[in-house]
Amino acid sequence: MNKKLKLEDLSRLSPEEFIKAEKIPISLLLENIRSLHNVGSAFRTADAFRLEKIILAGYTPVPPQKEIRKTALGAEENVAWEKNENPLEFLKKKKGEGYKVYSLEQTSQSISLEALQYDRLPKILVLGNEVDGVSQEIIDLSDASIEIPQFGTKHSLNVSVALGIACWKMLELELKHGLH
Amino acid sequence: MNKKLKLEDLSRLSPEEFIKAEKIPISLLLENIRSLHNVGSAFRTADAFRLEKIILAGYTPVPPQKEIRKTALGAEENVAWEKNENPLEFLKKKKGEGYKVYSLEQTSQSISLEALQYDRLPKILVLGNEVDGVSQEIIDLSDASIEIPQFGTKHSLNVSVALGIACWKMLELELKHGLH
Repeated sequence: MNKKLKLEDLSRLSPEEFIKAEKIPISLLLENIRSLHNVGSAFRTADAFRLEKIILAGYTPVPPQKEIRKTALGAEENVAWEKNENPLEFLKKKKGEGYKVYSLEQTSQSISLEALQYDRLPKILVLGNEVDGVSQEIIDLSDASIEIPQFGTKHSLNVSVALGIACWKMLELELKHGLH
Repeated sequence: MNKKLKLEDLSRLSPEEFIKAEKIPISLLLENIRSLHNVGSAFRTADAFRLEKIILAGYTPVPPQKEIRKTALGAEENVAWEKNENPLEFLKKKKGEGYKVYSLEQTSQSISLEALQYDRLPKILVLGNEVDGVSQEIIDLSDASIEIPQFGTKHSLNVSVALGIACWKMLELELKHGLH
């Protein structure tokens, strides 16, 4: 019998357990994301995949805000985050500390998502503005650009959906090759 | 030089080309989805991955609606869709025609998404209501339930994000094993 699980069967973490738990070594940097919905969704995805941190860069809105909470459902209180006004400097520093930087952007040398390989270093995934994408300066300092292959009529997926898909692939590589 | 691509470099299809193009043999069935945003996002994802069709079942809202369009960005005019009041009968008929039915739901026997295997048959992925999920009746007739592994505090991902992730995994299997 393939029975639907109830909330109490799902063995989710309490907020206190989440904060103490070892994280998947992936952070998100949101560069000039405008939509409160997209920020809230990033928090909810980062909670589900137990990511390290969210960096809210440039004019990306920060919690607390009602519209962020509506989508994040309170996940913005558990996931670590910081506001950052200078993402270029931040990313350079993190590269110096051994982080890999991936930009989610369609570029002349982007890796198609299904071809992404596991790397044991901690990673930062950069998502850009809903219309303009990741800035060329951040693409230039990224270790790789990653592209979700698309076959339709529109320019791109919704930011929150693209973020979820790219995080999933990175998590899947951790599950298959990492220590978790 | 890893240069960001412009819209005109992306070689997307025109609406006319999309309608004629061979589709990825995956359809979506939305069972009692309440949110216009989630329906719009499903259309945009289905456009990006060139899916076969969207079945809007039960009280799931249908186009044309301003809020669907706002998220779908017009993809609802290209992706094939139909309204259906009896999804159980519809899915039974489709199974008889050789379709596999997958429900995206956390169940006692669900397959964790990273373990999903390629199957050459056409597929229908069922997404359920934002709060109640896929109905037990549809789970019972599904060939498999699929679960996105989660490690956080919340019950589930946003519907539009979960839909995107599951579609991506199914598309990735098609890209790796299928004829495309």
